[in-house]
Amino acid sequence: MLTYIYLIAITAEGMSGALAAGRRNMDIFGVSMIAFITALGGGTVRDILLGNYPIGWTQHPAYIYLTIGAGLITVLIARVMHHLHRLFLVLDAMGLVAFTIIGCNVAIGLGYSPTVVVMAGITTGIFGGILRDIFCNRTPMVLRKELYACVSLLVALLYLGLREFGINHDLNQVISFSIGLMIRLAAIRWSWRLPVFSYMPGRWAE
Amino acid sequence: MLTYIYLIAITAEGMSGALAAGRRNMDIFGVSMIAFITALGGGTVRDILLGNYPIGWTQHPAYIYLTIGAGLITVLIARVMHHLHRLFLVLDAMGLVAFTIIGCNVAIGLGYSPTVVVMAGITTGIFGGILRDIFCNRTPMVLRKELYACVSLLVALLYLGLREFGINHDLNQVISFSIGLMIRLAAIRWSWRLPVFSYMPGRWAE
Amino acid sequence: MLTYIYLIAITAEGMSGALAAGRRNMDIFGVSMIAFITALGGGTVRDILLGNYPIGWTQHPAYIYLTIGAGLITVLIARVMHHLHRLFLVLDAMGLVAFTIIGCNVAIGLGYSPTVVVMAGITTGIFGGILRDIFCNRTPMVLRKELYACVSLLVALLYLGLREFGINHDLNQVISFSIGLMIRLAAIRWSWRLPVFSYMPGRWAE
Repeated sequence: MLTYIYLIAITAEGMSGALAAGRRNMDIFGVSMIAFITALGGGTVRDILLGNYPIGWTQHPAYIYLTIGAGLITVLIARVMHHLHRLFLVLDAMGLVAFTIIGCNVAIGLGYSPTVVVMAGITTGIFGGILRDIFCNRTPMVLRKELYACVSLLVALLYLGLREFGINHDLNQVISFSIGLMIRLAAIRWSWRLPVFSYMPGRWAE
Repeated sequence: MLTYIYLIAITAEGMSGALAAGRRNMDIFGVSMIAFITALGGGTVRDILLGNYPIGWTQHPAYIYLTIGAGLITVLIARVMHHLHRLFLVLDAMGLVAFTIIGCNVAIGLGYSPTVVVMAGITTGIFGGILRDIFCNRTPMVLRKELYACVSLLVALLYLGLREFGINHDLNQVISFSIGLMIRLAAIRWSWRLPVFSYMPGRWAE
Repeated sequence: MLTYIYLIAITAEGMSGALAAGRRNMDIFGVSMIAFITALGGGTVRDILLGNYPIGWTQHPAYIYLTIGAGLITVLIARVMHHLHRLFLVLDAMGLVAFTIIGCNVAIGLGYSPTVVVMAGITTGIFGGILRDIFCNRTPMVLRKELYACVSLLVALLYLGLREFGINHDLNQVISFSIGLMIRLAAIRWSWRLPVFSYMPGRWAE
């Protein structure tokens, strides 16, 4: 199941990357590249940090074509994208949660400690979006919007916690995925946010 | 031959990095660092993605001194740089094409699949410029200007295609390099561009 | 001794990251992440470049909690931070010098050549601050302010030089650390700066 959700998720992330590239008036090569980085960048950063070689997409060319294809299709259907606004938010939420669980699984498989497993889950979940924003020269949105990165943290903690309690692996994935998705959708619906830290520029550090 | 072109290319890329640093009023340490990153960053990212350790420049200190030296010399001759405008564009084009072929060779040597070989070529060709722009806090230019990153893609495809046809390795390098260089120079001369995707900010994604 | 200074340094760097995040109105998750990246990003980049796996913090969860904790505490005491301005500059200077020496030691232990050892020292010293600025979407400050990155270079050269002369390892660390710290504090006190390279945008490179 996670594999299908993963494929849907990288498609949705690729499309979100393409839209961000469009805001910066990139050419279709730039659109393809940002789509690829947004969709597969989180897993790539995770693999580099954990030393997990060869990196995932180098063994699955299909993922590369899927994300680039998603980016190029977005260019064609950009005019109607805002009608798909809600569908998109749901797909993106599914991606966030699925990426997180997959990231945790990779780190667990490599024998890392629980703290690093959680970091790996979060990295997989949110770094694609962060790289997208850095390449498009804007402050990463996932660190400022309503509950997003934090959902990734909660899912990773829940998943590890249930695992510690000896819950069946598949059941754990279903539970963690469902609860994570609900939290994210609720956060969108009711605009849940973490407290924001606003620091006025003083003299000393600018 | 490719080695000499490579040395010329990293020198030219180092100089372009220095100029970008100068636009941000960096000190000469910053200039040296941006020169180094622009010239050797593409190969570094490729090596990290492919797990190709030790990374190239760690085994060739001369490359480090060459690129930093190129950056510092640029500071001294900055006033006359615009007279060298055309020479510079040619050197940069040579670098783009040579980097791409070298990147393909590295991935082939590691046994990666054709798709990944093409990605490695493009990464080597364009990522130095992308890192330069990220470190100088601007939207990557190579994703917006006239045919640039796309030339890297075409060269990689041509090189792999001729290789598949069993063309002699050296001959293939000469052909791919020459055709790639011509395409890039023609693109500059006649302002060839890929279609640009401009997406107006709607409500849903900031 | 270096270990204690290291712990103090990553705490101070985590706090500086949190303040930078606060200037961008990030939520407390973003603050935690920027604190972590500022404190441990330099060593992470070094380890990736040198192929030094597993990466340091994955084996020391305590470092992760320490830096994130430092970031969150900064949110609580932000109002009084400017009173601690001077203390902060000293802690940051200690971090810069300690990180540099630690980075050199790692590269020496892996058998890299002197040039790469110096690069590893500088990377460890300054890349946390550079990543902080990239994630917060501003031009890296360490490449523009008064003598900063350059101190890292001087410390690395001094440390390697004394090592070459056969000075006792511990003594070398004490000497290099003390001299480096003095240079940095003197640079702040008397606003020492490297020459700045200002390049006016011409026609040719946008």
